[in-house]
Amino acid sequence: MRTSIATVSLSGSLTEKLDAAARAGFDGVEIFENDLLASPLTPEEIRARCADLGLSIDLYQPMRDVEAVPEAEFARNLRRARHKFELMRRLGADTVLVCSSVSPHAVDDDALAAEQLSRLADTAREFGVRVAYEALAWGRHVSTYDHAWRIVETAGHPALGTCLDSFHILSRGSDPRGIEDIPGEKIFFLQLADAPLLAMDVLQWSRHYRCFPGQGGFDVAGLVRHVLAAGYDGPLSLEVFNDVFRQAEAGPTAVDARRSLLLLQETVGRAALPEPVVPTGVAFAELVTPDAEPLTALLRALGFTRTARHRGKPVALWEQGDARILVNTGPAVRRDGAQLAAIGLESPDPAGAARRAEALLAPVLPRRRAAEDAALEAVAAPDGTELFFCAGDGSGPPGWRADFEDTGRPATGGGVRGIDHLALTQPWHHFDEAALFHRGVLGLDARESVDVADPYGLLRSRAVTSADGGVRIVLTVGAAPTDDTVHAQHIALATDDVVAAARRFREAGGGLLPVPANYYDDLAARFEFAEGELETYRDLGILYDRDADGVFRHCYTRTVGRVFFELVQREGGYRGYGAANAPVRLAAQHAVRGLTGG
Amino acid sequence: MRTSIATVSLSGSLTEKLDAAARAGFDGVEIFENDLLASPLTPEEIRARCADLGLSIDLYQPMRDVEAVPEAEFARNLRRARHKFELMRRLGADTVLVCSSVSPHAVDDDALAAEQLSRLADTAREFGVRVAYEALAWGRHVSTYDHAWRIVETAGHPALGTCLDSFHILSRGSDPRGIEDIPGEKIFFLQLADAPLLAMDVLQWSRHYRCFPGQGGFDVAGLVRHVLAAGYDGPLSLEVFNDVFRQAEAGPTAVDARRSLLLLQETVGRAALPEPVVPTGVAFAELVTPDAEPLTALLRALGFTRTARHRGKPVALWEQGDARILVNTGPAVRRDGAQLAAIGLESPDPAGAARRAEALLAPVLPRRRAAEDAALEAVAAPDGTELFFCAGDGSGPPGWRADFEDTGRPATGGGVRGIDHLALTQPWHHFDEAALFHRGVLGLDARESVDVADPYGLLRSRAVTSADGGVRIVLTVGAAPTDDTVHAQHIALATDDVVAAARRFREAGGGLLPVPANYYDDLAARFEFAEGELETYRDLGILYDRDADGVFRHCYTRTVGRVFFELVQREGGYRGYGAANAPVRLAAQHAVRGLTGG
Repeated sequence: MRTSIATVSLSGSLTEKLDAAARAGFDGVEIFENDLLASPLTPEEIRARCADLGLSIDLYQPMRDVEAVPEAEFARNLRRARHKFELMRRLGADTVLVCSSVSPHAVDDDALAAEQLSRLADTAREFGVRVAYEALAWGRHVSTYDHAWRIVETAGHPALGTCLDSFHILSRGSDPRGIEDIPGEKIFFLQLADAPLLAMDVLQWSRHYRCFPGQGGFDVAGLVRHVLAAGYDGPLSLEVFNDVFRQAEAGPTAVDARRSLLLLQETVGRAALPEPVVPTGVAFAELVTPDAEPLTALLRALGFTRTARHRGKPVALWEQGDARILVNTGPAVRRDGAQLAAIGLESPDPAGAARRAEALLAPVLPRRRAAEDAALEAVAAPDGTELFFCAGDGSGPPGWRADFEDTGRPATGGGVRGIDHLALTQPWHHFDEAALFHRGVLGLDARESVDVADPYGLLRSRAVTSADGGVRIVLTVGAAPTDDTVHAQHIALATDDVVAAARRFREAGGGLLPVPANYYDDLAARFEFAEGELETYRDLGILYDRDADGVFRHCYTRTVGRVFFELVQREGGYRGYGAANAPVRLAAQHAVRGLTGG
Repeated sequence: MRTSIATVSLSGSLTEKLDAAARAGFDGVEIFENDLLASPLTPEEIRARCADLGLSIDLYQPMRDVEAVPEAEFARNLRRARHKFELMRRLGADTVLVCSSVSPHAVDDDALAAEQLSRLADTAREFGVRVAYEALAWGRHVSTYDHAWRIVETAGHPALGTCLDSFHILSRGSDPRGIEDIPGEKIFFLQLADAPLLAMDVLQWSRHYRCFPGQGGFDVAGLVRHVLAAGYDGPLSLEVFNDVFRQAEAGPTAVDARRSLLLLQETVGRAALPEPVVPTGVAFAELVTPDAEPLTALLRALGFTRTARHRGKPVALWEQGDARILVNTGPAVRRDGAQLAAIGLESPDPAGAARRAEALLAPVLPRRRAAEDAALEAVAAPDGTELFFCAGDGSGPPGWRADFEDTGRPATGGGVRGIDHLALTQPWHHFDEAALFHRGVLGLDARESVDVADPYGLLRSRAVTSADGGVRIVLTVGAAPTDDTVHAQHIALATDDVVAAARRFREAGGGLLPVPANYYDDLAARFEFAEGELETYRDLGILYDRDADGVFRHCYTRTVGRVFFELVQREGGYRGYGAANAPVRLAAQHAVRGLTGG
């Protein structure tokens, strides 16, 4: 199927928008009128530019409040329409969108609406244009798709059809099954948008909070199935009004958009993508740092041993249990030091995982890091984190471990079993994209997004996990674009006894994040503890959470560069990440930063 | 009346919040539980700190889902409450807030609620604490203030009263008149918040969009009048959950908060502030620049004459009609050059205007700029713009003009009559504050806020004007905090013939902002013009708007530093600012910037 995107979904000038859409692989665009008006390019130049880029102009949207109005007003509308149809001829666009009227002058008269739309279609035909009539969810008299279709059917004009928009249909809770009763050839266009399920004024919801399919709460795929069953064979076109996308760079937004359509096409059986290959575990986490010393000290105190070093690069492998941390002092990194740069994911089929990622527009990273290294399949996540797909079971190509030479020191251990989860700070403009990426590309499940109060603004946090918990990644985003780099990433290490692990860490000279005494007074009010238990937690800065399924105990190291570690102990079926304790942890981290000026 | 603010309304650590509240002049605070839990200070230390700062702790809010629950659960709640009452004794706080339960275990049984609240109050009394019971707008069984009061009345316990919250009452559309039926001494506390009138889920609305009184759409003052009529004599306390305030610096937010309460107190007749003195016109606009040349060239092309220079400072006065522009090359300004730094407002009573501004916490600027200069009353607006109050009618102290020495050159003029309006870019976090400042401090009227599509994000824009249009200021804010400095400020000059003024400007070598041809094709579709009229507009880059009252024609100069000029011609009763054309103008400015790299 052909794919298209409305220019209003992307930021920048019309030229930037067209370039971004073409680069992301869209077949066409809907040109939003304001983008054309504000462009210094003539319609002919826009047409030529689209042709050069391989983009068709699938829709133009210059008309509002056209139909079901008094004759004098309709005459003015028709005059205006002639101008616009002439423009469309210059532009080479053959379908015009007409939304149901919101004018206070519109009358509730379907026969009049049909008659005037028919006359509009007569005029359009003179210019080789066809009219797609769409019900706005807040249309004055016509607000449902079946009503718009009845008017189109009444008009019975060959140049008049209907346009369906998933937002307008699903935001009203209309049943999309009725779409199958519309003859496919009379569905002139299909606009797609998802949206989070918000209880708010539908116009504001539509204008500010739309998102790409799969990023909201609507069953967009279900609707598309009905439209395809009706026989529609036009493009799938995204029309997304979103305050964040308006600010984001057009290039990444266009890729995000196209990926969402590819996943949608897969869901409805119209795209054959390589099967998802769900990762089974975390092979390694790679930290990049200009100065290994502070990290090395931290890892040693946590009980890690430097078990191997890379044969060709300044990369050390630190191990403990199933937790493997690479410390890479090679790449130039920013002054603020250590950061989590790459994740190795154990995969039952690394090549297959990479094929799917590539098909879903993830940038594929150079395969070989040096001639003698193992061939590692790697792609970049939207936040720039490198994801390496590693054979987990010893089969297939030689694993990444073969690139490392043993130091001969065994990993004795300080009680860490493995990596519980990784927490990654996301670029502000691409949080929803990140969740869709991890879901669609890696086949992970996305949990609900939660708000967390930081002293300097709310954070949002969302976990993406494999079904068995082998891979858990927590995506976090700050309150504003400026916060992109404020919040550190972290590696949470699983332990069976967080008290013992924390003690060992402290005895080895590790610095634990101090937690205020008031927090423990509150724990005492909320829960009952065994004799001395709370004092132990207070002493070590261990936080405590409990849900219906189990208990979660966790504590934090001091931050090095932009990275810190967490020690966690999960008991029972506890599935969260201690979000209830996050405000206290964040405040403590700000307090420490304030003290050290770091 | 005493004033108080909930710590959740301000950003930062508890210490930062307390400092900001005290500096802004609040008498007390409500301590939000999470702020205490996250603080490294003990309750005793917090108490001492508040005492040092002259702040009382008026309320503590640690209890949720207390009442109307099964006995076993209530016993746990009571156990928890004892802990919290003990904490409050250490803190020196004597009123605890209990919100109506949202627990799924709560039962719809007012008698049980009254009985359990009574037992809670018994326990509270042991610790010298009284319980203020409040209906949450989304409470499970109790969601209106009168319902909460009936339960309190049934309980009939001396240590149990009610807490009223303007958000919970007004968001539900409850009639606040019934408040007068509650005995004043049983209203233990009053929490105030305003909010924009949004049609959305009330919980989300409450948690993210509250604002200070006078910044939203609620009649908070009307509610306060009823509460005072009931005999309430406790503090007016602000409890505002707002995503923007969470990110903003605590200091300015606290000042904004206190100003809103002062204005509220004035409205309800409980504060005697100096009367507002509405400015009658713009005496001058002052531009600060490191390099006068580009500005000077622009002013000359616009038809301005350098009529005078300051006797003691590197400031030139440029005049034309009633438009007066000061060009100041004295202060060190940022590399990006010219900016609008000060506005002279003609005032019938400059000293009175300054007294009101000072009473409303506007920073008063040093009165005399040099020993021999005229005494000018000046304050800083929230965006840092200096506002000078100048005698407009020649009476009073010698005016600012006396500090200038004439050059002997008369202002001949290029068709500019005066200053139509000034457009000021606001800091992202203080847009609502700015509107309230100009309304409350200067006595201007605030118009509705409008969204304007910039190619790189939505802008918000709001005009504040004097009733006769003598002073018009347009406040604008970018899409995100990073946009603070992206958008330029501008000075709009009034002319009776924008075509002639634009021609003269161009002939004098001035650069007009080019407007895309597509814009004029659209004008042709929308309106009918006289022969040649549209071609003239197209030639000069003149934009056109029309409303029910009149016509607006306007064009723009190129930008110098962060400042540009607009030439405007208002006809009939047109009251707007050409917002419909703003997307085209903004795109054109981005395009020019892209070309020049500026």
